[in-house]
Amino acid sequence: MKKLFISLAAILLSCVAAQAQQALWSRANVVSPQINDDGSVTFRLNAPQADKAAVAGDFTTKDGKDIGYGEMTRDEKGVWEFTTPPLRSELYSYTFLVDGVRMCDPSNVYINRDVASVMNILITDGDRGDLYKVNDVPHGSVKRCWYDSPTLGKQRRMTVYTPAGYEQGKEKYPVLYLLHGAGGDEEAWMTLGRTSQIMDNLIAKGQCRPMIVVMTNGNPWQQAAPGESAAGMTQPAMKFDPSQKSFEEAFGDVISYVESNYRTIRKKEARAVAGLSMGGGHSFNISRMYPDKFDYVGLFSAAVGGVKDADVAASLAAQRDKGFKLYWIACGNTDFLYGANKDYMKYLDSIGFPYTYRESDGGHIWRNWRIYLSEFAPMLFAK
Amino acid sequence: MKKLFISLAAILLSCVAAQAQQALWSRANVVSPQINDDGSVTFRLNAPQADKAAVAGDFTTKDGKDIGYGEMTRDEKGVWEFTTPPLRSELYSYTFLVDGVRMCDPSNVYINRDVASVMNILITDGDRGDLYKVNDVPHGSVKRCWYDSPTLGKQRRMTVYTPAGYEQGKEKYPVLYLLHGAGGDEEAWMTLGRTSQIMDNLIAKGQCRPMIVVMTNGNPWQQAAPGESAAGMTQPAMKFDPSQKSFEEAFGDVISYVESNYRTIRKKEARAVAGLSMGGGHSFNISRMYPDKFDYVGLFSAAVGGVKDADVAASLAAQRDKGFKLYWIACGNTDFLYGANKDYMKYLDSIGFPYTYRESDGGHIWRNWRIYLSEFAPMLFAK
Repeated sequence: MKKLFISLAAILLSCVAAQAQQALWSRANVVSPQINDDGSVTFRLNAPQADKAAVAGDFTTKDGKDIGYGEMTRDEKGVWEFTTPPLRSELYSYTFLVDGVRMCDPSNVYINRDVASVMNILITDGDRGDLYKVNDVPHGSVKRCWYDSPTLGKQRRMTVYTPAGYEQGKEKYPVLYLLHGAGGDEEAWMTLGRTSQIMDNLIAKGQCRPMIVVMTNGNPWQQAAPGESAAGMTQPAMKFDPSQKSFEEAFGDVISYVESNYRTIRKKEARAVAGLSMGGGHSFNISRMYPDKFDYVGLFSAAVGGVKDADVAASLAAQRDKGFKLYWIACGNTDFLYGANKDYMKYLDSIGFPYTYRESDGGHIWRNWRIYLSEFAPMLFAK
Repeated sequence: MKKLFISLAAILLSCVAAQAQQALWSRANVVSPQINDDGSVTFRLNAPQADKAAVAGDFTTKDGKDIGYGEMTRDEKGVWEFTTPPLRSELYSYTFLVDGVRMCDPSNVYINRDVASVMNILITDGDRGDLYKVNDVPHGSVKRCWYDSPTLGKQRRMTVYTPAGYEQGKEKYPVLYLLHGAGGDEEAWMTLGRTSQIMDNLIAKGQCRPMIVVMTNGNPWQQAAPGESAAGMTQPAMKFDPSQKSFEEAFGDVISYVESNYRTIRKKEARAVAGLSMGGGHSFNISRMYPDKFDYVGLFSAAVGGVKDADVAASLAAQRDKGFKLYWIACGNTDFLYGANKDYMKYLDSIGFPYTYRESDGGHIWRNWRIYLSEFAPMLFAK
């Protein structure tokens, strides 16, 4: 024991020297963000030479006011600071704007990428934030793996969450296929959507049945998220390649891989498909194209449409006739797809297609998609 | 097919609107970094209001000169630019310095964290860079999972690489335990070390036997990397808590989890342990404390010492007597641990303890540790 302590102490001293040696390392000498007891958040930036600094974020105050921008004030040493009013418990994103340049907070290493933008994140305590945090509960595993898609003619990457206990047990599990929006990829639900935290927390509270969650890459021209395939470290972008077969047509390859590599319950009642925006459109298509596969469907701010097409109409009628347990449509009341979803529901009413509608505040944003997942997962796979 | 196309086109149009709606999104209107045909790299930053801008990186030119800093020049529109000389093929890290503030390149979403610093990365083509890139080869899976450590009294997180084909086959595999340095965690070898890319590429070229690589968290006071445990989104720091049992004493818990959850060959000849800096110290300790477990040991810029302690000396003599296949010591000739490693090797010589020494250029840096892994892995588990 003593000898270990001695050598470890030597190592620690060594590391201080190592730090001095590594020119790239430098720490900001301020604390930012600082989450205060009343739920307000203080941001700081050490920038003595700057003329102007501000925080750009998606903050919502406790009384429901959205704050997108806050001018920072400079102290005599050149440290800029801004404190929000008390905020609602949430996961927030922000960047700094310094003399017209957008930058991440150099004191905050927690960063999410949304398409081609990177931004810092923070979580404030309370009901919703607590659901997005890593808590002291049993944790599932998260695997990035590659599957063969013969339909698209390529190897493709996916992210798979298996609940705590999966490795040790022999039980079979139901599966939620969870699809991202345009510009996203197989990382989006993990980082922006906090899927593994939400699932760990819901399962630990007994509010949700343990399930496997499969997060695919919904861009058929792409093998994997930016930087994760031989396409290299390209600038992420929204793109559409009509020469490819569609993601929906290739979805059988996903199910086939998952069901032969994981212990799944291979029944309609144990499969769900849900997605946001483009992924909501994918879920709309996939659930009607594979009407024997999914008893649970979630359309989150979904890009729905095409019901005037005779084939689409016929497939929806067939889906209705075959039956399912839940067809859940969720949309924010300021979402630009609000009207399209309303129109779609009018059509569903006209053909007697049953669904449940959940309307929230807000627009086409991740805050809503995390809420929708938190509400949708507990409704799945009732025993 | 047609209907799918129609709805997808609608989605794509929708997304352009979505982008306008999301105030946090904004793209830099310059390309940066731009890797030029001659291996030079051009960096750009749109900052019309800045007075001074520079690039800080760890670039090495083709003729071996290290460049840590490059002043950018401003064009008439306020775009700053700097071009390096032709660079050696490598993975490089850099940040911008704008009027005294260190920031990531807003046009480059590829970011690594090293302890409490975040920095952009890029890879230039050629021999070494090609080994660190994702290439069009079969890819292994990477899993983040949690194991029980009764010795430390906590659940802990680890990262496990399994080679391509692991899921589909029934074969058993040898295991390399790969340990990080002080301030690092179970993510460090994946991000800074490019382990999954190096392993995929070496295995695909037939230069390395397919193996499982286990990347643990070597900080016994910690459950997981910053942000991945209930400790929350704290500022990463180097820390030492002598009240805890040591990582080395708890290493049996790691082996036990891996060998009961993965298809491993449970023999000394199929186990390797290697690490950098503090993790090199851990490998030094673990290999002598468990002398029946490891036939392959890698000390990369290792924090070694304590041989004057009678127990350490006795355990090294026992390790020597029991025998092993490879004891590989690698260090850079400007590493601050160079002297300590030289002293350690003198001691090994004095007791007739066989080892192989690899001396490289450079100091205590990730460039060297990637090279050491690339050279060490091919020497493991000869059939």
